[in-house]
Amino acid sequence: MTSRRSFMSGSAALAALPFISTRVTRALAAASRRKLGFALCGLGSLSTRQIAPALQKTANCRLAGIITGTPAKAARWKAQYGIPDKNIYHYENMHRMADNPDIDAVYVVTPNAIHLDNALAAAEAGKHVYCEKPMEISVARCRQMIDAVKAAGRVLGVGYRLHFEPHNLECVRIARSRDFGALKLIDAHFGFSIQPGVWRLNRALAGGGPLMDVGIYCVQATRYLTGEEPVSVSASLTRGDDNRFAEVEESIMWQTKFPGGALAHCSSSYSAAPAGYFRALAERGGFAMDPAFTYDGIRGTRSDGRPIDYPNIDQFAAEMDDFADCIANGMPTRVPGEEGLRDVQIMMAIYEAARSGKSVDL
Amino acid sequence: MTSRRSFMSGSAALAALPFISTRVTRALAAASRRKLGFALCGLGSLSTRQIAPALQKTANCRLAGIITGTPAKAARWKAQYGIPDKNIYHYENMHRMADNPDIDAVYVVTPNAIHLDNALAAAEAGKHVYCEKPMEISVARCRQMIDAVKAAGRVLGVGYRLHFEPHNLECVRIARSRDFGALKLIDAHFGFSIQPGVWRLNRALAGGGPLMDVGIYCVQATRYLTGEEPVSVSASLTRGDDNRFAEVEESIMWQTKFPGGALAHCSSSYSAAPAGYFRALAERGGFAMDPAFTYDGIRGTRSDGRPIDYPNIDQFAAEMDDFADCIANGMPTRVPGEEGLRDVQIMMAIYEAARSGKSVDL
Repeated sequence: MTSRRSFMSGSAALAALPFISTRVTRALAAASRRKLGFALCGLGSLSTRQIAPALQKTANCRLAGIITGTPAKAARWKAQYGIPDKNIYHYENMHRMADNPDIDAVYVVTPNAIHLDNALAAAEAGKHVYCEKPMEISVARCRQMIDAVKAAGRVLGVGYRLHFEPHNLECVRIARSRDFGALKLIDAHFGFSIQPGVWRLNRALAGGGPLMDVGIYCVQATRYLTGEEPVSVSASLTRGDDNRFAEVEESIMWQTKFPGGALAHCSSSYSAAPAGYFRALAERGGFAMDPAFTYDGIRGTRSDGRPIDYPNIDQFAAEMDDFADCIANGMPTRVPGEEGLRDVQIMMAIYEAARSGKSVDL
Repeated sequence: MTSRRSFMSGSAALAALPFISTRVTRALAAASRRKLGFALCGLGSLSTRQIAPALQKTANCRLAGIITGTPAKAARWKAQYGIPDKNIYHYENMHRMADNPDIDAVYVVTPNAIHLDNALAAAEAGKHVYCEKPMEISVARCRQMIDAVKAAGRVLGVGYRLHFEPHNLECVRIARSRDFGALKLIDAHFGFSIQPGVWRLNRALAGGGPLMDVGIYCVQATRYLTGEEPVSVSASLTRGDDNRFAEVEESIMWQTKFPGGALAHCSSSYSAAPAGYFRALAERGGFAMDPAFTYDGIRGTRSDGRPIDYPNIDQFAAEMDDFADCIANGMPTRVPGEEGLRDVQIMMAIYEAARSGKSVDL
């Protein structure tokens, strides 16, 4: 197959045609730019229900390949998305992607503790890496991933879809604008009641419980709302006597201080009814989002009664298109590996604080 | 003046009339029962705007007297409420109430650190004591108050108005009924931006900052919703560089574990915009109240979409009528001194946890 990249990225050739205006030239260049070919690595629920459908809605990306350990899934995806056999891999032969120009990037959607192995294989094959959150289960493994993708000269992004979500972005704008004065307090929660038997309850695969899985959204919210890094954390957790929680925490709560004076208290649970929200209070007002972290239906209100109301977008499509844009334009992504690493550092500190019963400095 | 008590409490005489049914007898006895005569001790904003107007709405209480250190206030209240001179006291001559049968109970509404002195004087004068929250500024002082009122053979109540508030009571019912399963998580906040120069910012008078003043409502909520006592607490606070907070904390957050497995995280602030709410999550649903702690306008929602919606009542009138009923019927109050003591114990542990950076067992 001819390299689509060398063929389609011919904006220079288009620009040479003197009768086409600059604006039209740019539009044509963008339209003709080769779409970023993603291979989805791990075909679980998130890939099946969210990411693959989202890829169909992207402007600059396409579903180019898959990596799966389950032949039945490979057959199903091949049929559904018309993926050629040569673009279907399993975990043991991912390195062969090095010879496959259809695949530009690998979106890692496997259990948390496998992210590093998948990312290393992708980077060694010369592919960009987009990694679901949490990035990995330890700080050291996050660092390894960052180093490997960097050494390969490729781009690493972490799947923080809410960095592209209009309601959350508006909350960031409100907080940073100081329209209501300095931010003083944030509370946040994200949790649901988990089904038994899933990998998320396996410590070796998940690295932790609800904190790693959904509490991370609260860690993120406190960071993007303040625009700061927390300086200390204290925490408590429960395990209950439920069989589901033999290996990971049932519920966890933590509180963080920010250098600008804001305080945040958060919780996450695998045993409470589904809920995900945050509320931020500043000196003269505030805002709340409920639900705050869902794929759609996100809604918010301001203390002055104005709604925070935007059309819901496909957050996965937005994050992948942005990743493609960043690569195409040589711009840094707003969700680099360092962002994923930072959250894992904080979550490890939260676990340490819960274990020790002491405040942990960050 | 003849003792109104000996005259009006003649239900035995009424019951002796054979042609009056028992029901009518009881109604007449209740109607004729002498109203509990309250003396308000401390005529600040709360007494002026809430408690005195509430007394006019009570069924079983009346504003019988005042204790104030400010002659101008005495004159104003005398004119407004028709209080006879003989029922007007200042702090130095409160002991003379012993000879005044108009006054049955003293409602202590002074700054926190003066509650004990006022309560001791009232008890020594043979009066029942109803004390605003927080009960006092230390555990030892709460115990002294309990012991003194007990030794005087009188009843001690603490002004926890929300124990009589329908929305909060319904939340307690929902939580205890386990309609949504076991309670797993509570978050709560109460705070406002304080004006400079008030006694609440004076450590000697207030004993602490927003925690003592309004955070106590969150401590209460976590206790009445779970129906349990917390087993441990960790906490953090800020002071900022605002002149208002030279002596007390600006904001504080704390997290408590309950023996049944529920976790609670709360905050309180003197620098954030006014807000007071709680949210409780159980296994299969939950409920939220916002506002939760106000004098009126309290509203709640359940996760099944049903509102928690009751007529707003005068909470102060309700608490005082209940206190009068308890005294008249020899029944224990639901807000005894021990309840006030417990919150002060917990708040002292919260401050200790914030100071030490360590979890404190309760």
